[in-house]
Amino acid sequence: MYIIGIAGGTGSGKTTVVRKIVETLPKTKVAVIPQDSYYNCNDGIPMEERRKINFDHPNAFDWELLISQINDLREGRAIEQPTYSYLECNRMPETIHIDPCEVIIIEGIMALCREELRQLMDLKIFVDADPDDRLMRVISRDMAERGRTAQMVMDRYVDVLKPMHLEFIEPTKRYADLIIPQGGNNQRAIDIMRTYIIHRLHP
Amino acid sequence: MYIIGIAGGTGSGKTTVVRKIVETLPKTKVAVIPQDSYYNCNDGIPMEERRKINFDHPNAFDWELLISQINDLREGRAIEQPTYSYLECNRMPETIHIDPCEVIIIEGIMALCREELRQLMDLKIFVDADPDDRLMRVISRDMAERGRTAQMVMDRYVDVLKPMHLEFIEPTKRYADLIIPQGGNNQRAIDIMRTYIIHRLHP
Repeated sequence: MYIIGIAGGTGSGKTTVVRKIVETLPKTKVAVIPQDSYYNCNDGIPMEERRKINFDHPNAFDWELLISQINDLREGRAIEQPTYSYLECNRMPETIHIDPCEVIIIEGIMALCREELRQLMDLKIFVDADPDDRLMRVISRDMAERGRTAQMVMDRYVDVLKPMHLEFIEPTKRYADLIIPQGGNNQRAIDIMRTYIIHRLHP
Repeated sequence: MYIIGIAGGTGSGKTTVVRKIVETLPKTKVAVIPQDSYYNCNDGIPMEERRKINFDHPNAFDWELLISQINDLREGRAIEQPTYSYLECNRMPETIHIDPCEVIIIEGIMALCREELRQLMDLKIFVDADPDDRLMRVISRDMAERGRTAQMVMDRYVDVLKPMHLEFIEPTKRYADLIIPQGGNNQRAIDIMRTYIIHRLHP
C-alpha cells in the first residue's frame, strides 16, 4: 500500500488536482480519503454553538478517527468512512465502506498538520497557489455555492481563513516532498503524479 | 524528444538532483546540458577584465548559442557543446559531441530565465532550498574547493550571490511546473522524476 497526503490552502486547487489524478486510475485500486469527512461529531452540541465552530482550525477535526482508520487500511482492514453535513454541522449516520487498496490519497487543508498522520504517508504533496488567486477562487465559489456577497466572503477571509492559513496550513509546506504550484491547472504536474501512481500500481 | 529545464539557486542541490535522476537512466537516451558550459567566450578580453565578470548575472551567458543548440538537438542535429575553464574565465577550444536523444535536461541557476528557452521545455522544475541551507553549502564548498575563508564567501554572498539570486533566480520559480524542496536529499521527489522520465523513454 502506498499512502499519499495532499495538502494546500482553501482555493489552492487541491481538490481539482486530486480529482484529475484519480479520474483515469482504476477505481478499485485507489481510494481518496477527504479530510473534510472527518470533522468532529457534534452530537449534544446545540446548533447555535455548532455554527460558531471554527472549521479552519485543527481542533475541528477528529484526528483520532482519521489516524485510526488510515492505520486500519494500512493493516488490511476495511473502514466505514464517516460522512459530514455542513447544513447540520454534524456527522451523519451514513458511512462509506472503503476496502483497503493499493493507493490511498488523504486530501485536505490540514492533511500534513499532524505528525502521526505524516508518518503514515509515503509521499507528501503541497498544492500551492498565490494568496490572491486563492482568495478569488474562494470569493467566486462562496458567492455561487453559498449565496454570500463578496464582502461577506472577504470578511470571513480576513477573520478566519487567512489567519488559520498562516498559522496551520502554510507551515506544513515544510513537510512536502513535492510542491505543485498553480494548483488544478498544472497539467504537467498532474501527469507526473498520475504516471508515478500508475507505476506503483501492480498490474 | 522531451526537454526538461531544472533551475535553482547556488547551493540548492540542483546538480545533485540532476545527477541522481540521471545516474540510473540509460546514458544513450538522456543528455544533460549544464548551463555553466555556456558562459560567454571571452577571447580578446584581458584577464583583469575577465576576473571582474559577474558570473551570476544573465549577461554572463551565451544565450544565443545555448538556445540555438537546444533547437538543433530538437530538430535532430548533433551539437558540439562548448566547454568552459573557470581558471581562464574563458571558453576552451575543446567541445563535447552530443547526439540528439530522447530526453534533454538543461540544468543551471538561470535555466528558467529566458522565455525563448522556457518555450522549448516540456517540463520546468525549480529545486528549492532555504536561503540559510544554500549559504551553508556555498560556504562549505567554496572553502573546500576554492580555498576561501568563510568571511570571503560571505562577503561575495552578500555582494553578488544574494542580490543576483533575488533578482534573477528566485523570480523564475514562478515558471516551474514542479518545485522540489530540500534539494538533493529529497529522494522521493527524485524517484518520482526518474519514474516519469523512464516512462517517457521508448523501450
